[in-house]
Order: sequence, then structure tokens, then C-alpha cells
Amino acid sequence: MRIEIAEGSLFGPANLPYGVFSSPGTAPRVGVRVGDSVLDLAVALGDEVFAAASLNPFMAQGYDRWVEVRRRVSELVGGEVPDNAVHSLADVTLKLPIEVADYVDFYTSEHHASNLGRLFRPDAAPLMPNWKHLPVGYHGRAGTVVLSGTDIVRPCGQRKAPDEPAPTFGECRRLDIEAELGFVVGVGSPLGKAVSIEDFPRRVFGAVLVNDWSARDIQAWEYVPLGPFLGKSFATSVSAWVVPLLALEEARVPTPVQDPEPLPYLRESRPWGLDIDLSVSWNGHEVSRPPYREMYWSPAQMLAQMTVNGASSRTGDLYASGTISGADKEQRGAFIELTWGGKEPVQVGGEERSFLLDGDEVAITATAPGAGGGRIGFGEVRGRILPATEAKQ
Amino acid sequence: MRIEIAEGSLFGPANLPYGVFSSPGTAPRVGVRVGDSVLDLAVALGDEVFAAASLNPFMAQGYDRWVEVRRRVSELVGGEVPDNAVHSLADVTLKLPIEVADYVDFYTSEHHASNLGRLFRPDAAPLMPNWKHLPVGYHGRAGTVVLSGTDIVRPCGQRKAPDEPAPTFGECRRLDIEAELGFVVGVGSPLGKAVSIEDFPRRVFGAVLVNDWSARDIQAWEYVPLGPFLGKSFATSVSAWVVPLLALEEARVPTPVQDPEPLPYLRESRPWGLDIDLSVSWNGHEVSRPPYREMYWSPAQMLAQMTVNGASSRTGDLYASGTISGADKEQRGAFIELTWGGKEPVQVGGEERSFLLDGDEVAITATAPGAGGGRIGFGEVRGRILPATEAKQ
Repeated sequence: MRIEIAEGSLFGPANLPYGVFSSPGTAPRVGVRVGDSVLDLAVALGDEVFAAASLNPFMAQGYDRWVEVRRRVSELVGGEVPDNAVHSLADVTLKLPIEVADYVDFYTSEHHASNLGRLFRPDAAPLMPNWKHLPVGYHGRAGTVVLSGTDIVRPCGQRKAPDEPAPTFGECRRLDIEAELGFVVGVGSPLGKAVSIEDFPRRVFGAVLVNDWSARDIQAWEYVPLGPFLGKSFATSVSAWVVPLLALEEARVPTPVQDPEPLPYLRESRPWGLDIDLSVSWNGHEVSRPPYREMYWSPAQMLAQMTVNGASSRTGDLYASGTISGADKEQRGAFIELTWGGKEPVQVGGEERSFLLDGDEVAITATAPGAGGGRIGFGEVRGRILPATEAKQ
Repeated sequence: MRIEIAEGSLFGPANLPYGVFSSPGTAPRVGVRVGDSVLDLAVALGDEVFAAASLNPFMAQGYDRWVEVRRRVSELVGGEVPDNAVHSLADVTLKLPIEVADYVDFYTSEHHASNLGRLFRPDAAPLMPNWKHLPVGYHGRAGTVVLSGTDIVRPCGQRKAPDEPAPTFGECRRLDIEAELGFVVGVGSPLGKAVSIEDFPRRVFGAVLVNDWSARDIQAWEYVPLGPFLGKSFATSVSAWVVPLLALEEARVPTPVQDPEPLPYLRESRPWGLDIDLSVSWNGHEVSRPPYREMYWSPAQMLAQMTVNGASSRTGDLYASGTISGADKEQRGAFIELTWGGKEPVQVGGEERSFLLDGDEVAITATAPGAGGGRIGFGEVRGRILPATEAKQ
């Protein structure tokens, strides 16, 4: 059979993202999304590495294999494919595509970092002195990275408003999102050896959409001096399809001018900014269009920073960009920025919102220019808020 | 044969810590240290769960199994054991005992937090307002947790002294240790469900010694506002033997008085402070004796805090106490405190030291009271500093 691809599909031959799926009664395995179908790679290519429940074994095979498999899948998609290698997307269950090793979250949007600085530290300069010298980042919780579509239980914890004398325990009252792009390490690097900027495309397999759910009241009380912890660790959602870097060549653009010039280990000889348009929908209504191309630090710079001290990296490491925010209000990728700390609510389908209410649903999508003049899609990262499960104290 | 145990051994029948070892030509598997011998559990108990290369499968079997296996090992150690189940410690190679899932580091010594506050933020109150309300913690890098004995390559990175106009790149000049105790989760907990204080002994399998190597100059420049990252992520060393909580009943003591009284989810009905004495040696000379019993927050409180927002936990999660420092100078568990930011060097075998030089070696040991009136040991966590490998820029 030939796989049907609708005119203008975001999942045409220029994309070919990888995911993990199962069909009724079968074990999870690796597939490629083509149009509204999933190509079963274990069947189509007859290779056991795709019979795994995550992309990790394939990613670990390295760059040359990524190129070879992409070429073979391209050929298959352009011709005849065995019937039993193709499933309708509607008939399969998608799984978390990677086994996450370590999870790191960066903070690479100048607009976001400035806005958060103003909101969290109104009496100080919005950007910290280190911000333009290095991509600031921190480790998050790998064990709570979940697949798009997973319901998000409203977290509980300690909160203390500035005018309250002591913290209280209860449900998060300022539940927020962060629209981000995440990068998946395919080939790790050994302890004691920094990864150079140039090595980025041979180390990083691809990109996913990330929603770094954030409990702002819990975060504000806990985060000094060791950084965000419980305000973030209850859940981080990722999209089901990993778009290979090989599909993003047309999207490459220079980052904004970096001034002061970064230290040599962070200088790029070829640009790795990415011209990706995100869209954030709240209960089905688009409230923001964050532009990835405005991010100050590139993903190659993030990887160089993450390993410059000799830290090893592993297949399955996930590192995310931090909230993607543009200069304009309607380009802000977190609701705390969009509503300016809740003081300027937004209209969501005729209802007023500042932070997330129980039952609210957020979906983040993205597209980028692909080879051949069309656009390619990242699918979506979606999640709905469930009420807190326990009235703990 | 009977396993010989020297008089006064810290590894007598009251201890029985678990580790992973291999003997020449064989695969790594689980053993118990008895005196200066290793009891091969796969052989002695004929159970495949011990043929694994980490303790994780056994730990995941849960509390009742931990009790049962400890009872059976106690019986074996008191009687005849098959010859082929016993190896001399000198003949085996020890391995990292657990497959680390997520790694979290807390900050639970009031003396340490106050000292670091004075050193890093001289113009502010030493303790942050949140410190006595919750155990402050953050995520570290699970992929760079290494076994005791692993050499530590001096990290490189950006540093900026307060009087320098811009950061420079180079080798860490203020390389430090943090003497800590780490707790290993045996049985994980699901997403959306907090672990109660009372559940601690059924979730946590045991404890290890931890050296959280710290590059103070890199940390000081990078850590605002998202916390320590590259200043810590180059390596964290752990001891080879996991002392089961079941061996620490005699060591249980109340924590120091907690004032203000913690919120209900952090209140203990039974004390989980631990009366453990650490010793820190620098090039073979003892420079500090940190007392774990003075830690403000208990390991049960740390676990309750780590999951109170509904974050799941997994078999193999490792969470550490943060630096263990007592009230006295010679009880400080980090050199930045011991030498007061490097301004008060210490004598190390006739040489003056403030931070670690290439070739220096640090060993941390610990003992606790065990059942029957003797003491039990944690073995050691040891590491030597190698020069930075690359003259990067």
C-alpha cells in the first residue's frame, strides 16, 4: 500500500518524527508518524532495535544510523509499504517516547527571564549579572516527565504570600504553564569530557514540545537559595513525537545578537537558533504565540554549558529551553507573564482567567519550515487540571 | 565454613549492609559485607533477584522481603555457609550499589545553612525565611553519581570574583567537599500521592555516605536564581555499602527541637533523627567529625517534603541530607566552612590547605550504635583529585 498524506499535512516526508506506540494486544514499539498514520519500524525495516518500548536503543546507535534510517524511511514513504506496517493514528496508543535519564531545564528567553525577574524580585534588576554570560539552568525531576494527555493533579504544598506571617499548607492557587522546547540526547558523553558546540548535531537526536507545569505560589516560597523544586517537580509534560534535528535544517537561524560576546566555549561557528512558531491554547482558545527564534541561547550552547564542567551525558537526557516568550504580550509562554502575576486577567472564551482552574485544559502546538517549502509539525503537548486529591494539612 | 568476624568489627551481625560486587571473570551481583568478607546472596540464598547488577530489583520487593532476607542472612552468618558463597573483600571489585533514578540534595543542617548564608550572602540574614518551615532541597544530576574510589577530575567553568569585571573561563580554584548521608528509596510511590512521615521505613531501604563535591567559585557565579548546577554536577560520590534502615534502630534519636512547630505533614510521631558520627580525612589526616544527630530535619521529613506535591518516587531514588555540620568548627562537613571561605587555612599533615589541590584525597567514614551494644560502620566514600584534563578557554 501507499501511505496517504493529506495536502498540507504537517507530517509529510519533510518531517518523519519518531514515537512509541502500541496497537491493541501488542507491545510498545517505535514508529514514525506519516500523515495520520504510524509506520511500524520493526515491521517495515525488520530491525529489532525498533521493537523496544523507547527510542533510547535506536538513539544510542548514533548519527550515521539516524541518517541512514531517515533515508530508508523516506524511500518507504515515497513508495510501497507492507500493509501490516501501517496503522491509523486513531487505532494506536501513544507512549512516552524516551526513557528519560536526567532532566535539565534552562532559562534562555531574555523576555521571560526579565519578566520573571520583575515579578519575583521587583526591587532588583530584572536580569541577574550572570544571565548574558551563560545559559542558566538547573536539574528537574526526570521521574515525573509524563506523556502529553496525562491529567495533571493540582499540587499541594506550602505557600506564603508576602503579607502573611507564616506559611500555610494547601492547594496551589497559582497553577501555571511554561511553553518550552525540549532536546533529547541520543549519544551520551563520558565523565570528564566537555561536549563542544560543534558536536551538538551528533549528540542530540531531536526535539519535543514541553509544558513545564509550575505552581507559582509554592515556587515563590521555596526557591531561595537552591532554586525551584516542588513548584515544578509534580509533572512535566512532553509531546509524543520526537522531531529529528535532521528535519530542522530549514528552521535554522542565528540567535539574536549576543552582547557581550560569549566566552569561546559558547561561540557558534554555525547558527543553531530555530525558527519555530508555538501556539498556546487555553480551553481551546489561543492565548499566545511564542516565537522560538527569539531565544537568546541556542540548544547547542545549552549542551556545551551542561557538560563544560565534565559532567557526563546519557542517551535519554532531556534538556529544555525554559519558557519561550517574545517581546510582545501575546507572545508570552507562561500565564504569570501573560496576566502579569495575575493582575491582568485574560479572556478565555468569554471567561476571565489569571491562573489555571480545575478542569482547564492547555494544549501547546508548534510548526517550523521544512525542506521543500512546506511546514512541519511537532504535534502537541496537552494536559488537563484535576482537583487536588487530598485535603491534607 | 563459618565467616570469621574480628572482635570489634564494624561489619558484624548487627550491620549486614548490602552492596554489588564482582569476582574475577564473573558478572556483578548482590552481596552482604560480613567482617572482611562478602557473602554472595545469589549463591547463599539461591535467589535470582540477587544476580542483578544493582540492588534495585531486591529493594523493589518491599519491606516484608527486606525483613525476611535480613533474618535469613543473620541465620547464615551465625552458622555454616557454603564455601563458594564467601569471598574475601580483597578479592572482589565493588560496584555502584544502586541504579540511581532521581537524585535530590537537601540542606538540613542549621549550622551548615547558616555558615553558607554568611559566606555567600554576607549582607543578609544567614538563614532564609523558609528554612525552618520546610527541608529545602533541589535536584542534582543522577548520571554523575559515582562509586567511592572514582577519581575526580577538577572541573572547568565560568568563575567571577566580586571584584572582577567579567567572568573568566578556567579550572575551579575553590574545589570543596560536602560530607553527607544519603537515603535510598526502595519502594516508589505513584504520581499524585504524597508519602506520609509514617511511611518512611517502608519506603526507604537504607543509607549511604555521600560526598557532594562542590566547585565553590563556579557555584557562586551561576547559582542565582535557579540554584546550584555545574558547581555540583561534575561528580557526587557514594559509598559501596548500603546500610539498611533495619540496622539503624539503635541509632534513632529525636531531631533537635523544631521551632516553629512544623506543619502537620512534617510532624513525626516517632523520631527519625540518627546518632551517626562521621569523620572526614584529608590526605589521611582527620580534619572534621560531623555529627549527624544535630541535623535539623530528619530523613522521614525529607521524604514527606519531596513528595508532598504529588511527585512520584522510584526505586533507586537517592536523596541526601546536605552537608553535615555541627556547632563547633571541627565539626564542619565542608572545607569552605572549615576554612571560612579559605581565609583560615587548616593544617593537613604539616601542609596548609584551604581548598583541594590536585592529588589530594578525601575519605569520609561513619559509625553508629548497633544492636547488641557495639558499633556498625558505613565503610567509606573516598576520592582523589586529578588535574583538569583540558586547557579549554
